[in-house]
Amino acid sequence: MAHRTLPPEAGALLPLLPMVYVAWADGSLTAEELARIRAELSAGLTLGVEAEGILNGWLDPAAPPAPSEMVWMREQIRIGAGKLRPEEREGLAALGAAMVGASRREREALETVEALLGVLGAEAARELLAPVAGESEPGEAAPPDPSRQASPPFDPAALRRYLDRDQIETRDQVIDLLRESELRIPMHLPKEEHRERVLAALRRIAAEGLGALGYPERYGGAADTAQAIVLFEVLGLGDLSVMIKCGVQFGLWGGSIHQLGTERHHEQWLRAIGTLELPGCYAMTELSHGSNVRDIETTATWIPESGEFEIHTPHELAGKEWIGNAAAHGRMATVFAQLRVGSEEHGVHAFVVPLRGEEGRTLPGVRIEDCGWKVGLNGIDNGRIWFDRVRIPRGNLLNRFGDVTPEGFYESAIPGSGKRFFTMLGTLVTGRVSIAAGALMAARTALVTAVRFSDRRRQFGPAGGREVPVLDYLSQQRLLLPRVAATYALTFTARELVRRFAGDDRNDEDARNDEDARELEGLAAGLKVLASRHAVDTIQASREACGGQGYRADNRFGTLRSDVDIFTTFEGANVVLLQLVAKGLLTRFREEMGDLRLRGVIRLLAERAGTRLSELNPVVTRRTDEVHLRNGDFHLAAFRYREERLLQSAARRIRGRLDDGMDSFEAMNHVQDHLIELAVAHMERVVLETFQRAVDEAPDETIADALTPLLQLYALERIEANRGWYLEAGYLEPSKSRAVRALVNQLCREIRPLAVPLVDGFGIPDDLLQAPAALRPTGV
Amino acid sequence: MAHRTLPPEAGALLPLLPMVYVAWADGSLTAEELARIRAELSAGLTLGVEAEGILNGWLDPAAPPAPSEMVWMREQIRIGAGKLRPEEREGLAALGAAMVGASRREREALETVEALLGVLGAEAARELLAPVAGESEPGEAAPPDPSRQASPPFDPAALRRYLDRDQIETRDQVIDLLRESELRIPMHLPKEEHRERVLAALRRIAAEGLGALGYPERYGGAADTAQAIVLFEVLGLGDLSVMIKCGVQFGLWGGSIHQLGTERHHEQWLRAIGTLELPGCYAMTELSHGSNVRDIETTATWIPESGEFEIHTPHELAGKEWIGNAAAHGRMATVFAQLRVGSEEHGVHAFVVPLRGEEGRTLPGVRIEDCGWKVGLNGIDNGRIWFDRVRIPRGNLLNRFGDVTPEGFYESAIPGSGKRFFTMLGTLVTGRVSIAAGALMAARTALVTAVRFSDRRRQFGPAGGREVPVLDYLSQQRLLLPRVAATYALTFTARELVRRFAGDDRNDEDARNDEDARELEGLAAGLKVLASRHAVDTIQASREACGGQGYRADNRFGTLRSDVDIFTTFEGANVVLLQLVAKGLLTRFREEMGDLRLRGVIRLLAERAGTRLSELNPVVTRRTDEVHLRNGDFHLAAFRYREERLLQSAARRIRGRLDDGMDSFEAMNHVQDHLIELAVAHMERVVLETFQRAVDEAPDETIADALTPLLQLYALERIEANRGWYLEAGYLEPSKSRAVRALVNQLCREIRPLAVPLVDGFGIPDDLLQAPAALRPTGV
Repeated sequence: MAHRTLPPEAGALLPLLPMVYVAWADGSLTAEELARIRAELSAGLTLGVEAEGILNGWLDPAAPPAPSEMVWMREQIRIGAGKLRPEEREGLAALGAAMVGASRREREALETVEALLGVLGAEAARELLAPVAGESEPGEAAPPDPSRQASPPFDPAALRRYLDRDQIETRDQVIDLLRESELRIPMHLPKEEHRERVLAALRRIAAEGLGALGYPERYGGAADTAQAIVLFEVLGLGDLSVMIKCGVQFGLWGGSIHQLGTERHHEQWLRAIGTLELPGCYAMTELSHGSNVRDIETTATWIPESGEFEIHTPHELAGKEWIGNAAAHGRMATVFAQLRVGSEEHGVHAFVVPLRGEEGRTLPGVRIEDCGWKVGLNGIDNGRIWFDRVRIPRGNLLNRFGDVTPEGFYESAIPGSGKRFFTMLGTLVTGRVSIAAGALMAARTALVTAVRFSDRRRQFGPAGGREVPVLDYLSQQRLLLPRVAATYALTFTARELVRRFAGDDRNDEDARNDEDARELEGLAAGLKVLASRHAVDTIQASREACGGQGYRADNRFGTLRSDVDIFTTFEGANVVLLQLVAKGLLTRFREEMGDLRLRGVIRLLAERAGTRLSELNPVVTRRTDEVHLRNGDFHLAAFRYREERLLQSAARRIRGRLDDGMDSFEAMNHVQDHLIELAVAHMERVVLETFQRAVDEAPDETIADALTPLLQLYALERIEANRGWYLEAGYLEPSKSRAVRALVNQLCREIRPLAVPLVDGFGIPDDLLQAPAALRPTGV
Repeated sequence: MAHRTLPPEAGALLPLLPMVYVAWADGSLTAEELARIRAELSAGLTLGVEAEGILNGWLDPAAPPAPSEMVWMREQIRIGAGKLRPEEREGLAALGAAMVGASRREREALETVEALLGVLGAEAARELLAPVAGESEPGEAAPPDPSRQASPPFDPAALRRYLDRDQIETRDQVIDLLRESELRIPMHLPKEEHRERVLAALRRIAAEGLGALGYPERYGGAADTAQAIVLFEVLGLGDLSVMIKCGVQFGLWGGSIHQLGTERHHEQWLRAIGTLELPGCYAMTELSHGSNVRDIETTATWIPESGEFEIHTPHELAGKEWIGNAAAHGRMATVFAQLRVGSEEHGVHAFVVPLRGEEGRTLPGVRIEDCGWKVGLNGIDNGRIWFDRVRIPRGNLLNRFGDVTPEGFYESAIPGSGKRFFTMLGTLVTGRVSIAAGALMAARTALVTAVRFSDRRRQFGPAGGREVPVLDYLSQQRLLLPRVAATYALTFTARELVRRFAGDDRNDEDARNDEDARELEGLAAGLKVLASRHAVDTIQASREACGGQGYRADNRFGTLRSDVDIFTTFEGANVVLLQLVAKGLLTRFREEMGDLRLRGVIRLLAERAGTRLSELNPVVTRRTDEVHLRNGDFHLAAFRYREERLLQSAARRIRGRLDDGMDSFEAMNHVQDHLIELAVAHMERVVLETFQRAVDEAPDETIADALTPLLQLYALERIEANRGWYLEAGYLEPSKSRAVRALVNQLCREIRPLAVPLVDGFGIPDDLLQAPAALRPTGV
């Protein structure tokens, strides 16, 4: 190949230089391809014999150019290109032609070769003219683009005030408390030290009077469940072991005394629980029966001779499992056991059983084992408990819903043991709402870190240009922005649920009607599922969004994920809760249908179907214009349609299987995936409605405008995720389904410039966030 | 309400007892409902005045029965039901009617009331007649059902021999080694101790001669890349820090010397690396440029005066990041840097740079910082490295692909710096295949634990029946069984890829043609993505499948997840690799199209479209019979159709955007989700084909029969997962899409009885598995 200088005959070859350079630089050409390029060029250009010879040498597969020659060629091209207008540099043929002012025919020959090269010409030309490494700007953290620095069209602090408007003072009080040294617990502590630090944090929280928030005022509380939930939620900004241990002590242990006990129990224990003088446990789950709590086997037998109950673990696997506060700190426990009075079984009841004496030694008949290391939450002393015929006084039965008289008669205002049991479980509802709120706080933390990091972290970019922030990539937007939207959607839903609880609280609790209570329980269960699943998934996505930096322990993704992981299981395994939700929907549906059967179910079903079918109007199923696709009525109609259809078809499928002689357990299992889908569809509809209301009720236009694209993204991303179902149902036509996807992408691009202020709206103070990836331009 | 005994007039009320009982037990009836039930019963049955009065008392909302009365009612019903045939106990009305031999009219009245009650009668009746807690069998671990104990129709050991047939001796040797005390590293060690234990494990591995497996025989090796990959993979059964540190030392550090260096480097260092006398690092990644390695900023400047290179970190953020072995143990490093010779830039090259002296002190000009705690893999000493004008001899340039002569001339057989760089990166390919195999081993471990646990763990069940194993639930089958199928599918693919590498190894490496090499690189990158994603997702699913027991640290889900998590990021972030794969496909497509352009692309595109459209034959798109849906040809055609269509439409969309004047970077980003989908579709097609071949080539019918339903499940579950796309494309009609889903469920049920032998086919010895959830009937 020609070396360093072009012989005069080679002037005609100058326009070929860009392509020759790219042919070798790309490096993927075979001998045949090189021969074809030679032939095309010879045919298209009028070359002298000598130039032809040089060209053959340039394209000889046996003699590739030396690297220095490559450098030289690039230099020649750059010199030639320096004088050209930008449009003349678009493509290798254009570049080559412009360098020498080639004729139209020459230009066409060049274009043919460019096509043969099989690279995108404009791209190759741009790369060729790009500055090489070392000439480019260093990767130093540069200030963000001016376009992004411009102040956002809404105030993140105002957004946060709207999101967190309930109990905002308690919120800020807990945030301040998290800044205190007792609450700042370092990571990677040995297990025992971690447990002691968490206990000390609880002492501090109790000392602030926050432990008793949910209890009546006479026991040091504020009689405000909503505030107690806020305490739990905001503790999610710190070490989650503190949050969960608070839940165990004040929520479960104290809550069981408060909710299942009566005044004498309140008098006796509630104040000491709120101050942490009396640490205790909530001993429900057993080794053999994780989620199937109704079938626990621990017994509480009435002993008429002494007027006591005998608490007993009938066999090893009926031991209480995973009991928080049991391994080290708990002094007493609310123990759930099957009540036996004489030959009568009255189902599960709760009993207060002392576990340890003042000096911390386990009491006779009580055996406790440490659960040891867990995946996360190692600041909590979970344990297993077995009872060997432990006697407790009659008064230790938490007797709000059922009691045994001194004479040994069982009494309850609730006749059936099944209903009694579910009434008692109702006390878990606050726990589930708390878990949901806490999970969402963890998701917020992860997202703030990931979004801020992605806004600043630059990787790759256009040839010759600066590297671009990774959040400019569609894949990164897709990974994070729908999760930001869902976090807002779910948080608004949690807020509304708490508000409904709190409203009920303030009225006479017994006046709460059964149906309302059942609905709230269903919503709490469903929200716990959606929020815990969302949190686990979002933390993982956020870790991956931060790449290697996400793997640094101090960015907290690992700890968050390990701690939050169990949220999908405790307080009711998600798959069990979703079935509960679905069964609740089916029961209501059957009740409605049951009423109707007498008046003609068929007619009504036909009417319902008619109503629905009108939504399958071809004009609607095909409408793909943006105005329609962004419209909240379309979203809600789609969500509702899905829920209703899933409900009706689930009922029909179960009925069909029962009619075919399948037993109901088997029939339910046969359509289990359908039931789970129904429950999720139901909850997503509730979440959408709530989010829509929240946007409608926004305090001003800037907030509404900030939330509107998130609301649209939430709705459309869910429709997109379920597009298989919608297409099967004929609710979407393929063109509409594609339009939804395109609009989701477009919404991601629209929201991207506001991503940082939107996560700032989560209101997490930097000093609590800590994660280097969130706080320093480069994340290190 | 009547107490304990029925007055003689109440005989007529006996058939109502079941419904009265359920009305109260269910507990959800309002006063109006009770009144309506009373009215219906009075109208339908001929009751005397006294009986009417008693009935009114029974259904008085103001006076619910006492719990003891409920117990009494249930006893009466049970006594009455004891004599009945099973079909007479189906439903409350049937039960009541049969108890007294009621007339047809009475029976109808009862049925009306049953409908009013709004509960499924059969279900309620079964529950009513179910044994109460305490009467039922205890939750003690019982032997598995005889049906499941029967020996499976295939031998799991034979299945494992087929799956792991390559290098099975090395495999078993590493398994034995994992039983030695040096390799049994406890969890929860302090970081420093963990690192030392992992180093000791590496020493033991090296002492067995396993470190050098991939190197030439004259340096103590076996010249067998496949065996080196097996070592890595099987170490995945133990502490994953050992696996990854082996990868760093023998694979990356040693591999860079082996692959990028020439004989003098091999002579100088390779033996000492294989024996671990010379621990070292692979210093490529920089703080600013995670995945964008081509733009790293560390420089290696040729110093003509002394004939040395000067390695320099130009600014803080150009420091090397996440370098394994750097924080404590590494003595040297292969450092990637931009080579500058005079004014010429030659792109990224690799240089051997000493880091520490014999005594372990950092050498002058080298600054190292410990990366500290990570999410996982804390047994590895990752560090950051900065160089301050460190001089190294000319010979320390690893010069296989480019060299600087003593006179200061740069020489390379590969002309373009771009191609040179990608050739060097080719050495990462073995690493990616290893990562894929290791990730799959972690997925195996998780699945064995989860499947065995789910096979034995019982929760809930039919009313009155024993609790059923959780793996009998469709949701649990859905969670685990498609992942078992995918693990087989991906593992067979990894095996075949290794076989192709090894085949290439044994032939002359330089004869490997470029296109083949590019294809293998693409496959390795794609498989690394699918396998790492699958592992992370499967470990999470397995943890959740084991509920609370999954949260015990000793079941290892937490450690596995934390360790494997980074597999999605290192050796190329998944999203970056998928784009590489997609770009490779597009380049091949464009080359093909480029050829064609000259002869008429349009015609050919039309031909291709024609071929494809024939697959949209309505008979095929509508066929929903099982024979068709289980057919491998249907599966492969569907996978291929998806890949081809995504490829063509991606090319068209990019071209359209370029034609509209978008720059190519922006155009690619605009369709990034499409590109990623294309890459995944491509890989899934490859995986399906490989799995199909593996089943075809099974050594005997029992193995083929065991794998066939897994193959069908893999294919159909993927089609189901992408059904939105297939429906949009018109490749599936809604009825067919629904039939696919139904068949996925059916396949889950079919595979369920063989689930345990199928995961036993993964060949993980119990003593290495350790997880209590996998080994003990109840998981504790």
